[in-house]
Amino acid sequence: MIPAEFSLIARHFRPLAGEGSLDLSDDAAVVTPPAGRELVISADAMVQGVHFLPDDRADLVARKLIRTNVSDLAAMGAVPWAYLVTVSTPRSTEDAWFAGFAAGLAMDQAEFGLSLLGGDTTSTPGPISLSLTILGHVAPGMAIRRNGARDGDGIWVSGTIGDGAVGLLAALGQFPDPDGFLADRYRLPRPRLGLARFGLVRACMDVSDGLVQDLGHICRASGVAAALQADLVPRSPQAAGAELALCLSGGDDYELLVAVASDQEAAFQAHAATLRLAVTRVGQFHAGEPHVTVRNKEGNSISLAHTGWSHFS
Amino acid sequence: MIPAEFSLIARHFRPLAGEGSLDLSDDAAVVTPPAGRELVISADAMVQGVHFLPDDRADLVARKLIRTNVSDLAAMGAVPWAYLVTVSTPRSTEDAWFAGFAAGLAMDQAEFGLSLLGGDTTSTPGPISLSLTILGHVAPGMAIRRNGARDGDGIWVSGTIGDGAVGLLAALGQFPDPDGFLADRYRLPRPRLGLARFGLVRACMDVSDGLVQDLGHICRASGVAAALQADLVPRSPQAAGAELALCLSGGDDYELLVAVASDQEAAFQAHAATLRLAVTRVGQFHAGEPHVTVRNKEGNSISLAHTGWSHFS
Repeated sequence: MIPAEFSLIARHFRPLAGEGSLDLSDDAAVVTPPAGRELVISADAMVQGVHFLPDDRADLVARKLIRTNVSDLAAMGAVPWAYLVTVSTPRSTEDAWFAGFAAGLAMDQAEFGLSLLGGDTTSTPGPISLSLTILGHVAPGMAIRRNGARDGDGIWVSGTIGDGAVGLLAALGQFPDPDGFLADRYRLPRPRLGLARFGLVRACMDVSDGLVQDLGHICRASGVAAALQADLVPRSPQAAGAELALCLSGGDDYELLVAVASDQEAAFQAHAATLRLAVTRVGQFHAGEPHVTVRNKEGNSISLAHTGWSHFS
Repeated sequence: MIPAEFSLIARHFRPLAGEGSLDLSDDAAVVTPPAGRELVISADAMVQGVHFLPDDRADLVARKLIRTNVSDLAAMGAVPWAYLVTVSTPRSTEDAWFAGFAAGLAMDQAEFGLSLLGGDTTSTPGPISLSLTILGHVAPGMAIRRNGARDGDGIWVSGTIGDGAVGLLAALGQFPDPDGFLADRYRLPRPRLGLARFGLVRACMDVSDGLVQDLGHICRASGVAAALQADLVPRSPQAAGAELALCLSGGDDYELLVAVASDQEAAFQAHAATLRLAVTRVGQFHAGEPHVTVRNKEGNSISLAHTGWSHFS
């Protein structure tokens, strides 16, 4: 008799398995990396009740897990290739949850050109705990780092900022969301693949822990300071009524935060237009100790109680 | 101010980061795969209270996490290269736990020639949940699969079988363990790197979920049946007093289970001797529907209530 754990893998995960996965029936996958490319690798964990709501649909949880990782590849200017996923669930988890989770993986691995290489399913006495390792590739030397921002570069963001954090409130019923736009933005990030192109941008990261905090990461990596103009930060009409501070410091945006040299701004905007992505200049990097200054429309410095999300305080 | 989460990563994990990890300060690692080799990739999760005991030392937990993954590479005949780790812990977790965990990673990444490429630290309201993705490499076409066992091949195991399961009992104070040997075997697997060599063995996997169940996996992958002689299964003197059924079906051995063609048995034994590894022939594969028969010394078939560990029943 095949134990339930392996039958579960066979039913739900094997159909997702790609070349080199050995049908998930060996100890490991065996793959040939794309020729002449560097590998770009990242891993993210997601925990029920921390990164997603306890009753979020399993397919959306799976897609968020893939997309937060794809967003890391997007920030590096990499092309998605493959992934491994570990899934720890209570023993009481119903088969329908796994079916939904696998359906979500299937949908988004097709969307982003990924294939499943392997993973693990285990039980847990706690909340559902997930981890995904993503592999992408990039032309040698053309990965985009956080350390390339220079004095005078513009600070740019894709899309709108704050929808993730306000979307969490909306999903909890604590913020009006008549058309469901905000909750959807919390549950289903849109990785901005293709926007960060080597040569066109100097530094990039994805906004996952709050714009101001993440901007601080670029400042420290690049050895520059940043002046952020709060009134320029693009917000969706749906989130316009939310507190500015929440939008600037809330997590889960998964937009890209980009440093663009002033003589590249037109080219960068043209490139974004070809992807039909809105991009907005929200400030400027300048020489100085790594530090983020947030200014309002009148040019006065704003102080934020929290600059972003931290799991440990 | 740098948030606590990033300070924690900087203090404990950055010192472990290897080439291509970008000091763990970018969205992803960028690495050049070993030239002319295939990548071998696997991921395993471990949950506190399921895969390790709630008060197990953090350094041993880290080393077990690395070693269960290295064991998968050993089964494939691969050479360890790099890893990513995700760590979800309660917010109350003390800094000393992270220091111990990182010390364990440091010790075993040196032991096995690994470097840290990336990962994630998050909070969880539940038990500590860990996941590790390991990358190794192998000469093209020379990964060892589970599907190569053939009629007449010998069934071989490395080391002694059952120590992991009996060791768990010992660690719980439910089995005598005067010298601590058994609990140590539960807490600190010994991956058998180098034993599974392409050309010398036909199929291999590591014994992680119980010998009989894992033997069934090889049978299904290879399309053969297996006759296991229970009295030949090597047991440590310390576990000799334990129930035979527990040793045959308990998990956490992390020994290798190998199919060896009869004309390769002498060469296989000589190879094991150069590694100073004990190997024992415990039965034979034969033609037939995939199935494991366990026989006692008298040749009678033994029926086991459970053949191995499953997270979901």
